[in-house]
Amino acid sequence: MARTLITGGLVVTAAEELEADVLIEGEKVAALALRGSDTARTWAESDAEIIDAADHYVVPGGVDGHTHMEMPFGGTHSSDTFETGTRAAAWGGTTTIVDFAIQRQGGSVRAGVEVWAAKAEGKCAIDYAFHAILSDVDDSSLKEMDTLVEEGITSFKLFMAYPGVFYSDDGRILRAMQRGAANGALTMVHAENGIAIDVLVEQALAEGRTDPRHHGEVRKALLESEATHRAIQLARVAGAPLYVVHVSAGEAVEEIARARDKGLNVFGETCPQYLFLSTDDLAGPGFEGAKYVCSTPLRPREHQEHLWRALRTDDLSVVSTDHCPFCFTGQKDLGLGDFSRIPNGMPGVEHRMDLLHQAVVEGRIGRRRWIELACATPARMFGMYPRKGTVAPGADADLVVYDPRAEQTISARTHHMNVDYSAYEGRDVTGRARTVLSRGRVIVDRGTYLGRPGHGSYVRRDTCGHLI
Amino acid sequence: MARTLITGGLVVTAAEELEADVLIEGEKVAALALRGSDTARTWAESDAEIIDAADHYVVPGGVDGHTHMEMPFGGTHSSDTFETGTRAAAWGGTTTIVDFAIQRQGGSVRAGVEVWAAKAEGKCAIDYAFHAILSDVDDSSLKEMDTLVEEGITSFKLFMAYPGVFYSDDGRILRAMQRGAANGALTMVHAENGIAIDVLVEQALAEGRTDPRHHGEVRKALLESEATHRAIQLARVAGAPLYVVHVSAGEAVEEIARARDKGLNVFGETCPQYLFLSTDDLAGPGFEGAKYVCSTPLRPREHQEHLWRALRTDDLSVVSTDHCPFCFTGQKDLGLGDFSRIPNGMPGVEHRMDLLHQAVVEGRIGRRRWIELACATPARMFGMYPRKGTVAPGADADLVVYDPRAEQTISARTHHMNVDYSAYEGRDVTGRARTVLSRGRVIVDRGTYLGRPGHGSYVRRDTCGHLI
Amino acid sequence: MARTLITGGLVVTAAEELEADVLIEGEKVAALALRGSDTARTWAESDAEIIDAADHYVVPGGVDGHTHMEMPFGGTHSSDTFETGTRAAAWGGTTTIVDFAIQRQGGSVRAGVEVWAAKAEGKCAIDYAFHAILSDVDDSSLKEMDTLVEEGITSFKLFMAYPGVFYSDDGRILRAMQRGAANGALTMVHAENGIAIDVLVEQALAEGRTDPRHHGEVRKALLESEATHRAIQLARVAGAPLYVVHVSAGEAVEEIARARDKGLNVFGETCPQYLFLSTDDLAGPGFEGAKYVCSTPLRPREHQEHLWRALRTDDLSVVSTDHCPFCFTGQKDLGLGDFSRIPNGMPGVEHRMDLLHQAVVEGRIGRRRWIELACATPARMFGMYPRKGTVAPGADADLVVYDPRAEQTISARTHHMNVDYSAYEGRDVTGRARTVLSRGRVIVDRGTYLGRPGHGSYVRRDTCGHLI
Amino acid sequence: MARTLITGGLVVTAAEELEADVLIEGEKVAALALRGSDTARTWAESDAEIIDAADHYVVPGGVDGHTHMEMPFGGTHSSDTFETGTRAAAWGGTTTIVDFAIQRQGGSVRAGVEVWAAKAEGKCAIDYAFHAILSDVDDSSLKEMDTLVEEGITSFKLFMAYPGVFYSDDGRILRAMQRGAANGALTMVHAENGIAIDVLVEQALAEGRTDPRHHGEVRKALLESEATHRAIQLARVAGAPLYVVHVSAGEAVEEIARARDKGLNVFGETCPQYLFLSTDDLAGPGFEGAKYVCSTPLRPREHQEHLWRALRTDDLSVVSTDHCPFCFTGQKDLGLGDFSRIPNGMPGVEHRMDLLHQAVVEGRIGRRRWIELACATPARMFGMYPRKGTVAPGADADLVVYDPRAEQTISARTHHMNVDYSAYEGRDVTGRARTVLSRGRVIVDRGTYLGRPGHGSYVRRDTCGHLI
Repeated sequence: MARTLITGGLVVTAAEELEADVLIEGEKVAALALRGSDTARTWAESDAEIIDAADHYVVPGGVDGHTHMEMPFGGTHSSDTFETGTRAAAWGGTTTIVDFAIQRQGGSVRAGVEVWAAKAEGKCAIDYAFHAILSDVDDSSLKEMDTLVEEGITSFKLFMAYPGVFYSDDGRILRAMQRGAANGALTMVHAENGIAIDVLVEQALAEGRTDPRHHGEVRKALLESEATHRAIQLARVAGAPLYVVHVSAGEAVEEIARARDKGLNVFGETCPQYLFLSTDDLAGPGFEGAKYVCSTPLRPREHQEHLWRALRTDDLSVVSTDHCPFCFTGQKDLGLGDFSRIPNGMPGVEHRMDLLHQAVVEGRIGRRRWIELACATPARMFGMYPRKGTVAPGADADLVVYDPRAEQTISARTHHMNVDYSAYEGRDVTGRARTVLSRGRVIVDRGTYLGRPGHGSYVRRDTCGHLI
Repeated sequence: MARTLITGGLVVTAAEELEADVLIEGEKVAALALRGSDTARTWAESDAEIIDAADHYVVPGGVDGHTHMEMPFGGTHSSDTFETGTRAAAWGGTTTIVDFAIQRQGGSVRAGVEVWAAKAEGKCAIDYAFHAILSDVDDSSLKEMDTLVEEGITSFKLFMAYPGVFYSDDGRILRAMQRGAANGALTMVHAENGIAIDVLVEQALAEGRTDPRHHGEVRKALLESEATHRAIQLARVAGAPLYVVHVSAGEAVEEIARARDKGLNVFGETCPQYLFLSTDDLAGPGFEGAKYVCSTPLRPREHQEHLWRALRTDDLSVVSTDHCPFCFTGQKDLGLGDFSRIPNGMPGVEHRMDLLHQAVVEGRIGRRRWIELACATPARMFGMYPRKGTVAPGADADLVVYDPRAEQTISARTHHMNVDYSAYEGRDVTGRARTVLSRGRVIVDRGTYLGRPGHGSYVRRDTCGHLI
Repeated sequence: MARTLITGGLVVTAAEELEADVLIEGEKVAALALRGSDTARTWAESDAEIIDAADHYVVPGGVDGHTHMEMPFGGTHSSDTFETGTRAAAWGGTTTIVDFAIQRQGGSVRAGVEVWAAKAEGKCAIDYAFHAILSDVDDSSLKEMDTLVEEGITSFKLFMAYPGVFYSDDGRILRAMQRGAANGALTMVHAENGIAIDVLVEQALAEGRTDPRHHGEVRKALLESEATHRAIQLARVAGAPLYVVHVSAGEAVEEIARARDKGLNVFGETCPQYLFLSTDDLAGPGFEGAKYVCSTPLRPREHQEHLWRALRTDDLSVVSTDHCPFCFTGQKDLGLGDFSRIPNGMPGVEHRMDLLHQAVVEGRIGRRRWIELACATPARMFGMYPRKGTVAPGADADLVVYDPRAEQTISARTHHMNVDYSAYEGRDVTGRARTVLSRGRVIVDRGTYLGRPGHGSYVRRDTCGHLI
Repeated sequence: MARTLITGGLVVTAAEELEADVLIEGEKVAALALRGSDTARTWAESDAEIIDAADHYVVPGGVDGHTHMEMPFGGTHSSDTFETGTRAAAWGGTTTIVDFAIQRQGGSVRAGVEVWAAKAEGKCAIDYAFHAILSDVDDSSLKEMDTLVEEGITSFKLFMAYPGVFYSDDGRILRAMQRGAANGALTMVHAENGIAIDVLVEQALAEGRTDPRHHGEVRKALLESEATHRAIQLARVAGAPLYVVHVSAGEAVEEIARARDKGLNVFGETCPQYLFLSTDDLAGPGFEGAKYVCSTPLRPREHQEHLWRALRTDDLSVVSTDHCPFCFTGQKDLGLGDFSRIPNGMPGVEHRMDLLHQAVVEGRIGRRRWIELACATPARMFGMYPRKGTVAPGADADLVVYDPRAEQTISARTHHMNVDYSAYEGRDVTGRARTVLSRGRVIVDRGTYLGRPGHGSYVRRDTCGHLI
């Protein structure tokens, strides 16, 4: 079997920092040995191909638990295909994504999964898995949940926002949660009170408040925290675990913290855009703010501190991207003169690992916490650990040799995502993936892309491994 | 003008306990004088009719802010008419009720008010006013709110429970609250997540859990506290005050307390049934539990301590009855074999003052707090203070000479409400209204009813006077 | 008996606003009558002396529960005597003070009370009472507490600050609280961790941080909230009520709120200086900041909002002055070059009613809450209600005819306190006492002082009447 | 170098569960390899000594962060020497202890450390380290802290209890914390308000309440939570991390949770006795309760749920033993007739790993959390990670082959601690260490002790590695 040895790096996982060499056999990490041990010396003298990681970190490949490739929204599609999106992810050191397969209203959940599987099949640079979005909760779709869980789709997302589109009422959410409590599925919610928000949207438009920044004003923080609280209570009634996606408001964090203090299996995810951007961006000149339209929306700058603190206290456990890019020209401009028609979403899959490493550089989080938030916890949360998310014997050899001192400037001119702008244009960050391996194979090395569409394979997931 | 002098009693209001004599001129309290002062002596020697209150309290007549006389529900009507119900109230020392006029779905709010006004006109033993229930929130009913507020209907109730009947979704509730923020109306909510509850009801019935006690089990405390939290957040978004009716769950109290700690104008009401009864009653033998079916439901006994504490800390500010009686025979039995068909509601308008006085006797609350909860705060909350709810120059002479040492046993055999059972059958309490005056006229005295239908007149209310 | 009639005003108490006339017989309020009633008309035609209060409020005289007249501190005395201080109080509409009699270390509590009684006897313009400060808690002083309570000294203050001077350790505080639980005494605490503060003081001075503003920096908000929390827990262990004096930190308010949410008898007092002044004043140019040195210290401006909110939510229940003036020249300057030697204290007894009325004008509190905070609650808290603090039959005729539209500018040039500066120099406020009566006698009227030393008499107090 | 291979087991660390074989070179773990990988096969065929761990767990040796061997207390010494105590620890799968070296009042800290080092030198079966107890905080001892930190004593304990013995006042605690903030030392506190407790002790004894159970009654939960809160605030003022030892009261947990929610570096430890025993034991017949006298005391049973929940939520991060045994006969009986003279402490070092594994069996905590609480976190907290507390290349080969199905009954007849009773007498637990290695050497195997005094070596610690 092909053997690769990564030597000289500091292996950083969620739990440890080790001066160890990593031996890969085929697609798997076979062993770790203490640098300088007899065992390590033996390896170095074997025929294994050697990757020198001196002065670098050896970290697990990133796991992005929240992406939307080729997603239909408001008459258009998110601009990254599985091919372009996963390639960009690979560039940024992410080696697994979990995308959302959407049940069409009136259609079956399985049909949605099959549509998404067909989109991804043969296209992905890295491994991929699916959550399913439930648009219709009824006896039939509940039954489908059971079989899908057995087939490796173990998490289901429900929307408290977007009435008339993805929206489920509280009864449907409760029923889906009850089913999840029985079959092991994890319920994910988009927690915003969409019914109330739609009233505010209508009022804003009627009063001529149509600019992008009004998107942030009508989607109030209190309506995020309200929905978050509600989802938590429904989960308590159902006896089910809950995962709240893209938390952006300090008040919502507080609800999650209250629940976690009670020892409930309630988990929160945030995204780099909420940590690094704010309503200042959304209020940019002209129509510039449209680049920053996503839901939950960006919040005033003071919310950022709440999010960072929650990442430290583990009241937020995962950082995903909610990658859902739309080009500024030709897509975002559908909402010129009416913010409610701006496609919701931002690009980000490429830069998550680096932006979080920047937080390490700035002292906001520790090195192990970086890996925990970006790799280990999402992998465990979504039933892929320890296959993904760590560097350990038996894990997939999804590994990144990370240069913690490399400097780069984020820009649409240089990024690899298929979108005509960057939300972080001109931002300098320190740290960059030098070499990226996916299941033992080098797919990015020193600025060269060596991967190919179809290398990435589908990951059948177990149920959530992160329950208290 | 006719002059009546009440002498020798201890005047107890929400704020003071005074050894004072009370002089009534016509329908109003004209003056209070220190017992033994020259002024008091002059009065005693005048031609005023004298009521001797020695060894008694002189307290304001009770204000019951929550009754449902002749209310249609599930194909029947609550069994007290305005005539029988207000007479029973008078017996118990209550001299003002605020009943709920219901907007019919598809009808106007005003039409509902007119129907209720017609039912009450010429029938009432004591003064009465109306809240309005909004069943349809739309541009037309919102406009009606403005004029109704000006006409003295200054509070509007919305239901988060009862989908398909009274239920309003969060958007409608938000709109009504916004209107209230503008026109001064107080929004009242029945806070239970009816959408989720209906799922649990359906599941319970499908599984054969049809007894009355299941009414309590499906209407979970968490679904009350959830709705309470939600209503509070919607009120914050609207910038409106909020009054939560019939709070029964400790968890709901906690939400109200959290809001009040923030200095928000959020108020909570509870009822004697939640303070003195519990799911033990609801789980009575055979179909007995049906007598105790109301919504929010009775809770396990341990919730009572939370309610009592909240009455002391003012996290709950009002005790009303939610009087809505249905006879055990012929009405409650509509729900034999299906708890969801049991008419929701319990009798209580006659015993609120005495049950709360019992709490004084037992040391749970103080004497002034008794009057505050039962008279002063509801009067102020609903825009009738100081006309109602206190003993002060200028107030209506709605007064009760209360015997704090009288002993009585509550029973359907002796009560005056038009219903065939008592929820407190056999309970001994200490304290009873000896003499009751309504606008200066004695309507109950030493066990004799001296009132008449039509004495009670309609009270046009001001806006809420209890805002922080 | 001499009869005085106050006509035409709006009587404002903690509970009511009434268009009523007030009849005084001798030293007492004898009666209130509705304006325009037959009774009121009869009075107007009697021989009573008439005070016209048209367009004015008629309010109870202020009750200042926290003053320090002629108090020894750091080798000097507070600059107001009982004569000058109570006269200034009268000018400002305050008609009762409760001053602190200090037990000398090694001396008896009673001896301290006698010293203070002698200072006040024959000197006061208005009524006065005493708290006692316990400097030595031992078997003997605990026994004294019992008899002093029976004699009308019903509250005892302990210091968690000032080691070596007034400081009591937690064991002594606990023992005093236990005794209070038994004999009805109210325990008051100065809640700052003086032991920790002294370490910070020493470090500051050693490092040359000697300016007045460092007084605020070493007396950290966290060390106030810590001590507040500690006092609360000790009171819980003792089963005793607790009154926390001069609360200034938002964090301390939070501890009191937590306790009150539990239904505990824990009460908080703040003072105008914490509501209107801040560390900005303490950091004034040169030695100016010394004028603002008091303990607890002034806090950064953002704490003010917490205090105002707590006054609305009743987490703070009383506004007193902690009046303890020292002249800038000759007293405050003892601390030139060493902030720890600046006499602690500020003048304020004259302006409390007006500064709080200003808060009414600005919409921070309501009119009734003004009276509650400044008159009714302190009177009830310290066992003088309804003799003091309200306008009701039987109350002492301590009344103020208050002009809510009068404008004034606070200044040392015009104030009546015996101190050479004003903490509010140049501040414009709206509202002023026009006529002040003490026990039926006019002592201030339209800018003329009509009182005399010795009119004020000692008030023997009952135990705290404010327990839940 | 000697090579040992542990094959066939499930390696369980705080982060992972791996089917991996562990290769030891000398005293260190050299490498881990996936079972069945080429690498593992190569090892199996080498000359390494093989330990078969099939059907067993391979876990890190336990790290007990809180023991008191040969500790003087109240005129006697805890009954385990370093020799007997560490041997018992080894039997139970614990391979590192951190004991407390006591500064004698008036002596230097270093002198205390030297005394303890002499006691342990050449005696220990397993590795050991020291915390230092500060009995005198002054300029000299603060200076000593700096050098001791550099020498590997990186944590210092202060007592808020035991006035006159170990007690430090808040100023001293603050100063020690400030020093720790500067030199990296971790401050540990025994958080009980000893000043207040001593008042209650004296009162209890004076009233004849002398039985062991009164030990629990006077050391009130509120006085533990008070001190916990106080220590937290002092740490905030100092900007220092804080470790609260032996937390037993639910209320104290709440304070720690509040602090952690704010993102503060505040950590809590509890002990098996608080998780499994209660005041029921302390109130045993006759003098039996003396066996359960320790401080903080055992609490009423309902506190246990709070502690278990906090172990799940990480509001408590470590389970240590506070092992401090005194024989029932000859030591505990010093307190016959006076609970305050009962030596404080209980045996436990031998059974911590098994009792916590029992919690795994019962579903209270997960397998990885077991290792985290008992091995990884204490090692990291006290600066010994990843040398201790995990199974990873480079770690000391302190390993336990644990049989998760072995059944045992705890009893003084069979335990190895030098004490004449067991606090868990007769308790059945499932799980037991089969083979224990200390730095690569087997010291216990299948019921045979193979270790020797002096094998255990002193561990020089780094500063706390667990800060957020």
